[in-house]
Amino acid sequence: MNYFYNSSKSTYANRGMILESDINITNEYYKNENIALINKKPTPIKVVKTTYDRTKIIEAFFEKPSTLDYSGIYKEKYIEFDAKETNSKTSFSLNNIHKHQLEYIRRLILLKGITFLIIRFISLNKTYILMGKDLISFIDNNTRKSIPISYFTEKGYEIKLKYSPRLDYLEIIDKLLNEKEI
Amino acid sequence: MNYFYNSSKSTYANRGMILESDINITNEYYKNENIALINKKPTPIKVVKTTYDRTKIIEAFFEKPSTLDYSGIYKEKYIEFDAKETNSKTSFSLNNIHKHQLEYIRRLILLKGITFLIIRFISLNKTYILMGKDLISFIDNNTRKSIPISYFTEKGYEIKLKYSPRLDYLEIIDKLLNEKEI
Repeated sequence: MNYFYNSSKSTYANRGMILESDINITNEYYKNENIALINKKPTPIKVVKTTYDRTKIIEAFFEKPSTLDYSGIYKEKYIEFDAKETNSKTSFSLNNIHKHQLEYIRRLILLKGITFLIIRFISLNKTYILMGKDLISFIDNNTRKSIPISYFTEKGYEIKLKYSPRLDYLEIIDKLLNEKEI
Repeated sequence: MNYFYNSSKSTYANRGMILESDINITNEYYKNENIALINKKPTPIKVVKTTYDRTKIIEAFFEKPSTLDYSGIYKEKYIEFDAKETNSKTSFSLNNIHKHQLEYIRRLILLKGITFLIIRFISLNKTYILMGKDLISFIDNNTRKSIPISYFTEKGYEIKLKYSPRLDYLEIIDKLLNEKEI
């Protein structure tokens, strides 16, 4: 039995929020324990019109992000990642990642930033880290528009849910740092 | 004569944008040269109401930032800073920095992030870096609500305008890193 995530209870509307909420409370834990400081960036919004006193926005549009959603510091190193959920049981569609974000990931790798995706396969109750280099390697060597689940089980690292911290992704990053894998 | 910044030409309306623009083109240079990857975070906005199809925001509010405006990676290290302009010739008002931002700077220092302010004294045509530790030291040891210009000349580092990169603040950070000052 899974105490943390009961997919039968979740509706379509709130599904997209659960992974984000898991990451937010994990980041809060890291902050309070002085382990890391990792924040979700604000959603990029193009403001078109405000009231005259600029206290209220009355016309604006969502913009496509060109960076990743979360960034911060861990062990003096720069971390930046994105988090996505999918309902698919078989693959993760690359349509979820914008072209500018891929370029950005390539640049981050060049500068030795720690960059990755956290992908949750909702129906499988599985959450994986896929490192930026493995994402780029897949894209550069495949014509497929989606990454099969087998690639995650082979190249990715599963993050198990815990009580606290909820989604301890830095445990995996730490292991990779110790093994000089990143 | 100053080729880059002629205050007699600038109107009140565009003044706040000039430092931001200088930093943005500097960051663009750092990116293109693969020196660093530093981005301005989107302005935090609380979206209240969108059209039914969510393509347009029709009610939203600006939120106070709890982090700093720019963050990124340089020499594998985490950098985060804020940039402010002042019309005062004598001091920089601490009202420009929110309480949550100060707490955030303290946390960043604890985790050994490179954090600072870039402050431009418009009327003096001077731009300084003030490192986070010197900002915090001032606040912890003074009751004044503003930092006098003398503190910047003593503890800060002047960034000179150049053709390219326009506002080479990483030159100063680099020097401090080499001298093990940060």
